[in-house]
This record gives sequence, C-alpha cells and structure tokens, in this order.
Amino acid sequence: MTISQIRSARSGPMTAAQRALAILECFDQDHLLLTLSEISRRSTLSLSTTHRLVGELREWGALERVPDGRYAIGMRILELGSLEPQGMRLREVALPFLGDLQAATNANVHLSVRDGHDVVYVESLHARGGADVLSRLGGRWPLHATATGLVLLAFAPHEFREEVLSSPLKQFTPRTVTCPDRLRHVLADVRRTGVGMVEDSITPNCVSVGVPVRGPRDQIVGAVAVTVPATKSSPHALLPALSATARAISRGLGAPSAKGRPNTAA
Amino acid sequence: MTISQIRSARSGPMTAAQRALAILECFDQDHLLLTLSEISRRSTLSLSTTHRLVGELREWGALERVPDGRYAIGMRILELGSLEPQGMRLREVALPFLGDLQAATNANVHLSVRDGHDVVYVESLHARGGADVLSRLGGRWPLHATATGLVLLAFAPHEFREEVLSSPLKQFTPRTVTCPDRLRHVLADVRRTGVGMVEDSITPNCVSVGVPVRGPRDQIVGAVAVTVPATKSSPHALLPALSATARAISRGLGAPSAKGRPNTAA
Repeated sequence: MTISQIRSARSGPMTAAQRALAILECFDQDHLLLTLSEISRRSTLSLSTTHRLVGELREWGALERVPDGRYAIGMRILELGSLEPQGMRLREVALPFLGDLQAATNANVHLSVRDGHDVVYVESLHARGGADVLSRLGGRWPLHATATGLVLLAFAPHEFREEVLSSPLKQFTPRTVTCPDRLRHVLADVRRTGVGMVEDSITPNCVSVGVPVRGPRDQIVGAVAVTVPATKSSPHALLPALSATARAISRGLGAPSAKGRPNTAA
Repeated sequence: MTISQIRSARSGPMTAAQRALAILECFDQDHLLLTLSEISRRSTLSLSTTHRLVGELREWGALERVPDGRYAIGMRILELGSLEPQGMRLREVALPFLGDLQAATNANVHLSVRDGHDVVYVESLHARGGADVLSRLGGRWPLHATATGLVLLAFAPHEFREEVLSSPLKQFTPRTVTCPDRLRHVLADVRRTGVGMVEDSITPNCVSVGVPVRGPRDQIVGAVAVTVPATKSSPHALLPALSATARAISRGLGAPSAKGRPNTAA
C-alpha cells in the first residue's frame, strides 16, 4: 500500500515513520532523481520536514545525492533489498538456469513472485536485440496483465482470486483482459494447461508465456516467463525449453514433483 | 553509517525516522528472519515501540511476515533498491557481458561499486562447482580486502585513500593486508598495472583479480572481478577475458577510452 492509501483508511496525522516512508515512495522508475522541492511536493510534506528527513535518510544511506544535487535511492536500500528472503533465494537458485534459457532462446526471460495484487520481477534477463519490453529487476505489474501474474493468480486460493477479480483492473492496451468473467475463463485454462499467456497486454506486439516454479512443499513460489516479439516465431515453440527451466529451478528449490521421473507439470 | 554510529556522534534521543531505520538495520545476511523480541533487542527499542513500528513498516511493505510468524525485509524494499541509479544502470549494461565471462571462464564473477569505505556487489554470478566464495548480490566488504575494492581505492582521490588507510582495517585472515604502508605499495602497483589482486584475503584458498570499469567521462564507476580456487589455474590466465569484459562494459556505458582502437587499459 502507498502511504496515501494507508492514510485514507485512517484519521489523524501521518506518523513519523510514515513520513519517512512517504519520502522513499516518491521515487519510482519514472522518478529516479528528485530535487528537495519535488520530494516535498510528491510526499505532501512541508519543505522543512522534507529537508530534515531527507538529511536523516541520507546520513544512513537510504538516499544518496548525485553530482547535480538531486537525490536518489541509496546503495543501502539496494543492499537491504537483497535480504528479502523469498525473491532472493529464488533468484540465486534460478539465475544459472535463466541464463541457459536466455542463451538458448534469445528471448527476454523473467522470474516473478507475487506481492499483493502484483507480480514483482526478481530477475530479468534481456535479449540483446530482443523484444523491447518493460520488464526489469524490481519491476511491478498487476497480476491480471502478465503471463507470470496469470499463473500465480490461477493457482492462488479461490478467495484471493475473487478479491483480485473484484478490484479495479487496469487496462494498459486494448488487449488487456480486464473483464472478470473472461479472466475467470482464462484462469481456468491456465490451471488446466499449467501455462499462462498474454498478447500485447502491457506492451504492444509482445507475447509472453509463463509457467509455475514450485518450492520444497510443491507449493507455487514464483513463475518464469519468456517474452518475444509477436511477429517472431510462435511462443509455443519455446514452451519445452521454458518448462524444462521451470522444472530445473523447482528441483533446485527441492520441489518433490520435480525430482526423478516427470509425473505432473513442474 | 549505522544508527548507533550516527547516535554516538550526537546527543539527544533517537529521532522517529532513526527508530524506523534502526529496525530495518536489524536485518543482515546472518539475520534474515527475526522475531519481534529479537528486533527489539537488536534495535535497542522497547518492545512496544518495536511492535508499533514493525506494524507500520509491514503495512507499507518494508517488512513482511513469514509463515512461522517471524519478520523479514519486504518485497517493497527489493523493489525500491532496484531504483538505485548507480548500481542498477551498471548492472543492466554489464549483465550480458558478465554472463559471457562466467560461461567462458567458469569462474565466479562479480561487479562492484564503491559505497563509503566498502564495495557493494551489484551483481554476482556463481560458477556451478566453482570456488566457494562469499560474494553475493548486495554483499558489502571493505575496500582493502577485495580485488575490486583495491582497484576502486587505488584510483580514488588521494585524500579519500589516506582517510581509508588511516581508519581501522579489518583482518579477515592472516593474509589480509592491513598495514597502511604495505597497502600504499599494493595500491601503487594497482595504479601502474590497472589490476587488483587478493589471495586468501577474506576466504582461504581463493584468488580474485579485478579491473576497473569506466563511465561516460572515463571516470571509474565500478570494477569487475573473477574469483577462482587458489589451487586452480593461475588467475592471470583469466586476465585477457576479464579485461575484454571490463572494456565491453565500459563501452556499453559510453566510456570514450573503450571506443575504437585500444589506447589505454579500459
């Protein structure tokens, strides 16, 4: 949740910790570098409060000052983020296999986990000269609009799935599926086939195919996907390589179904 | 700086933002999961303050609760860390070349930037079956004890170099060089050759070799290194591949000296 979402559910003034978080959340992919007054405006904090808090955050290393005097997220946050256990453990096991997949297919490859109603990319390998997509490490996209998100949503508990389907679903392109009934059908297909697919859902002329990654109790802990230009070869041709990669990662995580002979889709 | 270092330089109570940061900094590589009372003890905050702040940090996503009830760094911090401009830009350009180097050498490969008196690993690719080293994404090690750190220190401004050499230098193994005079000689060699090397400096039986990566104004923005078991082939044999990789990354970042014909070491 954003601080303004948290605040809208409460009365009373922002707490001190919320003011510090409100400053951090001013930064996003479109706002990597901000001046003090931009931070003040975006956080709705006074310039003097912003000045004091930015100073404290910078002293600790949560923010850093770049040569032109603007502020950016600091190395300390990058370092702290590497301690997030779910994504980082997955990334560590998955990275060599994702590299193999990327080398074999020359597609963009990414690995996602679910966080709230979104997927977060914990790894993203770009093809040199591949599809120009918006995936990146640490990127966040709604579940309903991505191949990995459809996989994670399809296999999520029924109540959670309905909660997502009844929330506002963002339309990125004319081809983003946002109708709850149509999404229910799509998700039933994903459960049946074990494969999620989106076409032009966020980026025009891009097709993504995703499959689940399983953890030590065979629970779904993430999903891996390849993205190719829609004009290129059918993404279904990449499915064997993708499935083999997901199975190798699942085995690396200790998933019982990915050990020994194949029985169910890993 | 840690909150306790910041506090020791000041009088008066901890500020509210510092209390929130003190909770975040309880987590490190050896403390990925903590109970509420462990957080309280490590942060030196009362249990009631800890309880309240952990709740606020969790609501925003800075912390998350794992199934056994303990707390961990949340996905929101991982996501925020991906916005750190220096490391992430470097990583994006470097990752394909680092993958090539790892595949060609089967060595552990890492890419570091300087943060204070430390290097932070912005990327780390492990060889399958390679040297068992402690490098990892987001890892932090003192400049004087790593190959990339020696490179970054050697080419840093004189005043900064002397500041580091006059600070306490941690001895990790009997072979960590901590004597300022000996380090001055080592650093002069690094400046002359463009290559930093450490043997058994942090991890026994490991040799690392590092070279600089240059940015758009030919300034040194990071360093890339390979690490191999000391018993294996001489790390010097990897130097051509390592130098070619550093040059390719530098060119990707727009470094003038890495364009066209080689003139100086990239």
